[in-house]
Amino acid sequence: MERDGSFARRTVVRYEGARRDEADDAVVVEEPLEIRIGDDPIAVTMRTPGHDAELAAGFCLTEGIVAEPDDLEAVEPCGEALHGNVISVRLAGPASARRAERIERARRELYLSSSCGLCGKQSIDRIEQAVTPPAGRFQVSTAVLARLPDAMSARQAAFAATGGLHAAALFTAAGDLVVLREDVGRHNAVDKVIGHRLLLGDIPFDPGILLVSGRVSFEIVQKAAAAGIAVVCAVSAPSTLAIDLAQRVDLTLVGFLRPGRMNVYHDRGRVVA
Amino acid sequence: MERDGSFARRTVVRYEGARRDEADDAVVVEEPLEIRIGDDPIAVTMRTPGHDAELAAGFCLTEGIVAEPDDLEAVEPCGEALHGNVISVRLAGPASARRAERIERARRELYLSSSCGLCGKQSIDRIEQAVTPPAGRFQVSTAVLARLPDAMSARQAAFAATGGLHAAALFTAAGDLVVLREDVGRHNAVDKVIGHRLLLGDIPFDPGILLVSGRVSFEIVQKAAAAGIAVVCAVSAPSTLAIDLAQRVDLTLVGFLRPGRMNVYHDRGRVVA
Repeated sequence: MERDGSFARRTVVRYEGARRDEADDAVVVEEPLEIRIGDDPIAVTMRTPGHDAELAAGFCLTEGIVAEPDDLEAVEPCGEALHGNVISVRLAGPASARRAERIERARRELYLSSSCGLCGKQSIDRIEQAVTPPAGRFQVSTAVLARLPDAMSARQAAFAATGGLHAAALFTAAGDLVVLREDVGRHNAVDKVIGHRLLLGDIPFDPGILLVSGRVSFEIVQKAAAAGIAVVCAVSAPSTLAIDLAQRVDLTLVGFLRPGRMNVYHDRGRVVA
Repeated sequence: MERDGSFARRTVVRYEGARRDEADDAVVVEEPLEIRIGDDPIAVTMRTPGHDAELAAGFCLTEGIVAEPDDLEAVEPCGEALHGNVISVRLAGPASARRAERIERARRELYLSSSCGLCGKQSIDRIEQAVTPPAGRFQVSTAVLARLPDAMSARQAAFAATGGLHAAALFTAAGDLVVLREDVGRHNAVDKVIGHRLLLGDIPFDPGILLVSGRVSFEIVQKAAAAGIAVVCAVSAPSTLAIDLAQRVDLTLVGFLRPGRMNVYHDRGRVVA
């Protein structure tokens, strides 16, 4: 759990061909940051800690709350509130009507950056209350998992045409594709997959395997847990918060899933070699 | 502008080595979707059109508004409102206190999926009001642009360690790196870069070149335009809305920037071979 700047260490089980070993892996840190104007919270964003003052200042500029350096009096962390994850922007000069309107709009639109929809802490609590861990007997072999990325990419019609889409797909323990959806937003692709089952009357469905084409953040694990999915796999890297949530709700999390190799960040006997 | 499912056609100028040609490119469609519970808007998400009912149903499940199929009475598009970009979820049975609380929370937290922070239409209007097109004489050569991805990845320390980070970097017209930032959220990396300049007192700064490590969505172009950046480049694909906004605010947009090749989606003489 030691943190070194923008990444932290997590224990991982690596499968590479027939080899299985445990290692310490560097994982990108994801944590919520609450941005305040003075004492007033206007936004929560899931970000990688570091350069938080820049993030808050840039947010205020790109959201139209400030227009030039002289509009800023100070940008300061709020001590140890929420483990240092709060930053306050103090504005210089009188609050113009235009600025007040923009702050109000930013608050209304509550900017939620990693598309999280939630402050991390609040939703970890909520998930833990709401989720029943998936049935324990669900198992999948590493051989089946290793085939899933190719099965998914073979079906990514729109990605093939544009190179611009995330995909999410649901598979059975035997590796059969249940449904695949594509979207510019990875969370949307996941919501579409889950909504597909819901509209068919299949929620809660048997625990399945969700594969996402890119990285896996907190939000993806949260959505999968809400739908009772047992195993989440990603072609690319997980964040710290994704791993930590998977552990807390006992959801199996696999990253860097490629033909012949994968990293298992949390498991309780669901993945078998 | 013809649309074919989840992608549309846009004119692009391709540079490949010394060759320059015009082509029609398939680009992933990005459009806002407003999700309503009954007549009441609770969320706006930037999504790829298609399977909108699934997206709305899945959103309601993963956000805790419904728990099972019987909670849904119907999921229906709202005719031609906002060009077909509105969908309504009708809930079955009496609204429980718990459900009312969750709807209220979803509305409060206003889920903004591509981390856009805004409904597309509103912010296109806003950007067009707020932005002065960057100075016309800014020019950059394709030879300089082609070197930027390597210059960026050489500096991506955290990505090298974790494989889990987006990067954004600002360069001068000569290709010199001004600042590079990494984050789990690509919009955060962009806000950090812009905030860095703002905190140094350098906003508005001379128009520069912003390079992002992944895809480029509406929101990235919007943030760049708000900061007066002249040229936005991405290693991967743009969305339709990113291209359309770049054209409207006259910001040069380059996609699939790789050594030796690139696609220019909008330009007015800033890119020279």
